[in-house]
Amino acid sequence: MRTVFLLATALLLWGAAVCVAAAPSGEAQVEHDFDTQIHPSDLRDWMKLLASEPNHVGSPHNKANANQILSWFKEWGWDAHIERFWVLYPTPRSETFELAGSQPFKAMLQEPPIPGDTSATATQPALPAYVEYQGDGEVTAPLLYVNYGMQDDYKTLQRLGISAKGTIVIARYGGGWRGLKPKLAYQHGALGCVIYSDPGNDGYAVDKTYPAGPMRPPHGIQRGSVSDISLYPGDPLTPGVAATENAKRLKISAAPTILKIPTLPISYADAQVFLAALGGPVAPPSWRGSLPITYHVGPGGAAGHLKVSSDWGLKEIDDVIAIMKGSRWPDQWVVRGNHHDAWVFGASDPLSGQVALLAEAKAIGALTKAGWRPKRTLVYASWDAEEPMLLGSTEWTEAHAVELRSKAVVYINSDTNGRGFLAAAGSHDFQHLVNRVAADVVDPETGVSIGERLRAHMRIAALEPDAKEEVKSEAKVAAEPASDFPIEALGSGSDFSSFIDHLGVPSLDLAFGEEGDSRGVYHSAYDTFEHHSRFVDPGFVYDALLAKTIGRVVLRVADTDIPVQQAGGFAEHVSDYLEQVEKLADDERDRAETQAKLLRDRAFQLAADPTKSSGLPSPLGRVPHLEFASLENAVDRLERSAKAYDEALAKNGADLPGTRLGQLQSLMLTLDQTLAPESGLPGRPWYKNLLYAPGSFTGYEAKTLPGVREAIEDHRWSDADRYTKFTAAALDKYSDRLDQAAAVLNQQ
Amino acid sequence: MRTVFLLATALLLWGAAVCVAAAPSGEAQVEHDFDTQIHPSDLRDWMKLLASEPNHVGSPHNKANANQILSWFKEWGWDAHIERFWVLYPTPRSETFELAGSQPFKAMLQEPPIPGDTSATATQPALPAYVEYQGDGEVTAPLLYVNYGMQDDYKTLQRLGISAKGTIVIARYGGGWRGLKPKLAYQHGALGCVIYSDPGNDGYAVDKTYPAGPMRPPHGIQRGSVSDISLYPGDPLTPGVAATENAKRLKISAAPTILKIPTLPISYADAQVFLAALGGPVAPPSWRGSLPITYHVGPGGAAGHLKVSSDWGLKEIDDVIAIMKGSRWPDQWVVRGNHHDAWVFGASDPLSGQVALLAEAKAIGALTKAGWRPKRTLVYASWDAEEPMLLGSTEWTEAHAVELRSKAVVYINSDTNGRGFLAAAGSHDFQHLVNRVAADVVDPETGVSIGERLRAHMRIAALEPDAKEEVKSEAKVAAEPASDFPIEALGSGSDFSSFIDHLGVPSLDLAFGEEGDSRGVYHSAYDTFEHHSRFVDPGFVYDALLAKTIGRVVLRVADTDIPVQQAGGFAEHVSDYLEQVEKLADDERDRAETQAKLLRDRAFQLAADPTKSSGLPSPLGRVPHLEFASLENAVDRLERSAKAYDEALAKNGADLPGTRLGQLQSLMLTLDQTLAPESGLPGRPWYKNLLYAPGSFTGYEAKTLPGVREAIEDHRWSDADRYTKFTAAALDKYSDRLDQAAAVLNQQ
Repeated sequence: MRTVFLLATALLLWGAAVCVAAAPSGEAQVEHDFDTQIHPSDLRDWMKLLASEPNHVGSPHNKANANQILSWFKEWGWDAHIERFWVLYPTPRSETFELAGSQPFKAMLQEPPIPGDTSATATQPALPAYVEYQGDGEVTAPLLYVNYGMQDDYKTLQRLGISAKGTIVIARYGGGWRGLKPKLAYQHGALGCVIYSDPGNDGYAVDKTYPAGPMRPPHGIQRGSVSDISLYPGDPLTPGVAATENAKRLKISAAPTILKIPTLPISYADAQVFLAALGGPVAPPSWRGSLPITYHVGPGGAAGHLKVSSDWGLKEIDDVIAIMKGSRWPDQWVVRGNHHDAWVFGASDPLSGQVALLAEAKAIGALTKAGWRPKRTLVYASWDAEEPMLLGSTEWTEAHAVELRSKAVVYINSDTNGRGFLAAAGSHDFQHLVNRVAADVVDPETGVSIGERLRAHMRIAALEPDAKEEVKSEAKVAAEPASDFPIEALGSGSDFSSFIDHLGVPSLDLAFGEEGDSRGVYHSAYDTFEHHSRFVDPGFVYDALLAKTIGRVVLRVADTDIPVQQAGGFAEHVSDYLEQVEKLADDERDRAETQAKLLRDRAFQLAADPTKSSGLPSPLGRVPHLEFASLENAVDRLERSAKAYDEALAKNGADLPGTRLGQLQSLMLTLDQTLAPESGLPGRPWYKNLLYAPGSFTGYEAKTLPGVREAIEDHRWSDADRYTKFTAAALDKYSDRLDQAAAVLNQQ
Repeated sequence: MRTVFLLATALLLWGAAVCVAAAPSGEAQVEHDFDTQIHPSDLRDWMKLLASEPNHVGSPHNKANANQILSWFKEWGWDAHIERFWVLYPTPRSETFELAGSQPFKAMLQEPPIPGDTSATATQPALPAYVEYQGDGEVTAPLLYVNYGMQDDYKTLQRLGISAKGTIVIARYGGGWRGLKPKLAYQHGALGCVIYSDPGNDGYAVDKTYPAGPMRPPHGIQRGSVSDISLYPGDPLTPGVAATENAKRLKISAAPTILKIPTLPISYADAQVFLAALGGPVAPPSWRGSLPITYHVGPGGAAGHLKVSSDWGLKEIDDVIAIMKGSRWPDQWVVRGNHHDAWVFGASDPLSGQVALLAEAKAIGALTKAGWRPKRTLVYASWDAEEPMLLGSTEWTEAHAVELRSKAVVYINSDTNGRGFLAAAGSHDFQHLVNRVAADVVDPETGVSIGERLRAHMRIAALEPDAKEEVKSEAKVAAEPASDFPIEALGSGSDFSSFIDHLGVPSLDLAFGEEGDSRGVYHSAYDTFEHHSRFVDPGFVYDALLAKTIGRVVLRVADTDIPVQQAGGFAEHVSDYLEQVEKLADDERDRAETQAKLLRDRAFQLAADPTKSSGLPSPLGRVPHLEFASLENAVDRLERSAKAYDEALAKNGADLPGTRLGQLQSLMLTLDQTLAPESGLPGRPWYKNLLYAPGSFTGYEAKTLPGVREAIEDHRWSDADRYTKFTAAALDKYSDRLDQAAAVLNQQ
């Protein structure tokens, strides 16, 4: 603890001692002056204010926060306004989940206040626990425990000879995105869905519970959206277009992203009573959580009564947009965003990232007051309504799609932040930029750069006995100081989605974390200022560090004359993805052949315990060999083109004459959009990016080469063949563009 | 359930309907007649009687059981006697484990009776819970949670910056053999050791607890031996020689297998109180059990007071030895054993196996009464004092070592049994025999052979997402009906140890299980007749099946003229083991190089959370390249010799003239002893087998090529080089013998 506080104090003193006088110039000077404007105490004060009352969509405090943020931007010299949309945002009217029959037990569905915490001092009402865009209804039915409620869990149920039909399923949080739980439950015939937080994942099994420690207390509840993002995020009623006041809207009953069955989140204190009442077979080992009970699957033993009724009205949402016009290339935009709405108080999620964004905005304002101007235009966005499913950012990008496609150089996102290691994800042609910035920012706990610390973290993680191959191969790269450390691919779950997935605008998502841990209060009423300051980022050191880190990314993209992308890292990742996808096809073939033999030999029946119910798996069918040559050729070419471009940039990038620089910039600004042709992904055309997408059956987690990879996973063979070619064509366009850019660089 | 009971009934009827009249002859006829004598109701009645009172070493009921078993053998026509030894067997005089300081809490150390269970109806006293051969003492010290208390756990403690010095460690059962827990604790400076059964491993997390279900109830306690078997099993005072009345004995203080610190086993109901009182860092994820608490490591928060005082007297033990003399080769012995002593009532462990052995003996007696005689001599042994560490069998083999080395064809062991799948382990030249028998015994639940069912089980197990490579490769073999399914290598933990490990006599250990599960009452007062009949083997169907299975093995070894060994399967396994050992050396080298780089780059420090205590790992040192050529050549030669022998046997084995048959038998009878030269393993010369041994740091689990493998694991490079050569020499002797045997077979 000592290290942290001493360094935090040092930073405060350092910040206070410096005062900007003349217009800074030169990257190092600008960044140094920027840093002197970042004060952890500012971030602390802002968070305390913004997180003092419930600030969910539609709440008075959320609107007050938007206005407060607007006035700060203006005060700091930004050209700021609120851009408003009108979105569907149902809120609970009445809710019940109880044991049916003779045993009377009702789930609490509210989180009791904790003394000394904002949950006890706030004066405005919090909503009861709910999940957004579930389907209202009332049902009494047998209860069934479905583990995480993911695809594999239903396969396991089938092997147990159990159907979810006509049941209310109880799923634990984790294993995949929450919204898939009620969606898959419905697809398997369930009538209702209840989701609880098992203490094994974020409760007492992990650490002491709040307020004694950071983890989820027995009555803590995780809220969240269950809108079907596999189709599209944003307002369910206005897919693909902005939810302006007079936009054409779908009928609620026709909105495909609203789920069909009543769904509620509950606490583990409550879940234990329902789970303990279940009969049926004992849950398989991997299904067991950390409650002190024997987990049974059901059905039988207990029935539940579930009722949800909501107010289905439209709500106003307020995106705060602040512009700092570029001095030289005002039509090249660096877009930076973080949302301000939360589920209850939202100190860590999203205000820890929001206050970093505000600190950047204040520091940039100070730089401009001292005479500096960014060469490119900065667009800072404080999004509303991210929590219900990225509504503020999605409606805004849909409203400004044309302009963004022609102007946005990159979108840089943040969200929850905490003490610890850099976590970087995004478009891989920006990986090198992230590495350069990470090499220049000092970690306050260790005194080395955040890049060096992250490399150490990646390498040590690979020593864990259960480390995955991916982690091990990342560690190998991280061990080579001459190589860029790898950044992750983006899926969904925060406001970058419409930029990268829908528009093809390259995006980055940056955060610190792992040491300071807010998962125990995630989406609960206990994600408060007190929790964040005690357990997630004491001293606001890493929230301030996020501002310094992202600030550098913003400033370098804004002010570097030549494009910041490098193609080599991107090409390497794409080559890895292709290898993975080819291996996946081979593994699927082996799996199908093994299963066919097992079925033929009646091995499932012979290995089953006849005293227990069991069932056969669905036959996997024959897995054909796929035509990968077009994609292999495209990746080979990409590797060549990337190498040629990077070499040309290194050789001739400096001192490029103005016309050629303009040509180069224009070629590279829209480079990543070649990966997102209009056609989109199979069955979900809103998602256009053929390199990166959230998984249809993972939710937030990324699937790379998604058109091909998911087709193989789902055994859609004609889609696999089609998307191999589509993806190859997109990569060829990307390579074309690189070749043109290299030609501009190499002109004599 | 229906299938089981219907088939059980069918078996009973079938058994009752047949009556042996004339001397059976021919393998099929003898085995058929043998089967008709196996009645599940016999096994039930015998178990009920033998398990009716506590039958630990030295108890009146254990002695009564030995006499009862003796009189049964005699009644069935065997030449039976009791062979007595005098062994050190300390029993608890007084015991305490309590929280020191202001919070008064005392561990119960006794298991309360359960109504309807033998634990409530028995009239003779059970001992309090204890572990055998711990070191008496009294200590008050801080408590420390050490997970399973295995070597890797102490490495983790070092990374957490925590020492066990001066503490009382609390270890959970599992992860390796119990006796290593106090041994390693002592080696790391701990003053006492407490071992508890976490409900995650055999309590409520796995299934409902007894009497509602099979699993360990909150106050259930696992007893067991902690004698240092890495040195030798058997009586601690008479290593290598029989503990006869006047044997020369070590002083107790000089006996190296008796541990040095006080150690007690406790229940999870009690453990929860001690663990919840611990301070210090939160336990790493893999250390967390299923108690509803945050597992902390300590020290700090709580101190414990531990006291154990024992009565260190000698006790009489009674091995019941029953002989059925061979008609043709009386000096070739088929030895068959199962122990009769237990920790409390011992229904599953060991009486389920004991009643199978008795059923075989009764059936064989009936065959002889009808005029049949085995060609070779049968030696049936009902061992005493297995539980304290294989005392009855070890002292007997030490007493009869010379005779066994010249006469024992094979030793066939059983112990705990239950409903489910065949589990077979042993000397791999007997793998083919096991396969042949398994193909001829019908599984009562499925109607296919137990071999076919086992193959299905192996193949389905390989589908588990976390299936190990070994399981997957076994499944591949099991999927080929033309190949023998693999049997496991033997480590220790039951009475085969002195045969295979010390004398080099080939051994087999056979059981059924996995569906009926006695682990929840393992070594507790609830391992009762009621528990076994309800949860482990309802109807005694699989206990009877064990008698039929082992009976066939015994009869075939006894009556087959030509030796039953096949060398090909053995050679294949040895070749696999060599591959594993070579890979291990390479992996160790990679690991050491990776660690050296991490230490050089300060990666451990940089990845550590500075608010938490942490420490550096011990440097692994350089891993040299090892000379494997001699062993590679020996394995190549073994493969050639094995192939030649098996082919010669197949071609010329039938109708071999008497003299040559005698030559062949004599060469093959002692074949496996070539693997166990007098020198023994490094640091533990009692263990002579260079192919199979219990792991020094796993306890019961086998290590194959142990001289080489453990030297690499422990970085003893000169031992590795020496034992590569020793092992190669032993394998060459084995090959020599095969070549001689093939020559006898191929003589014109």
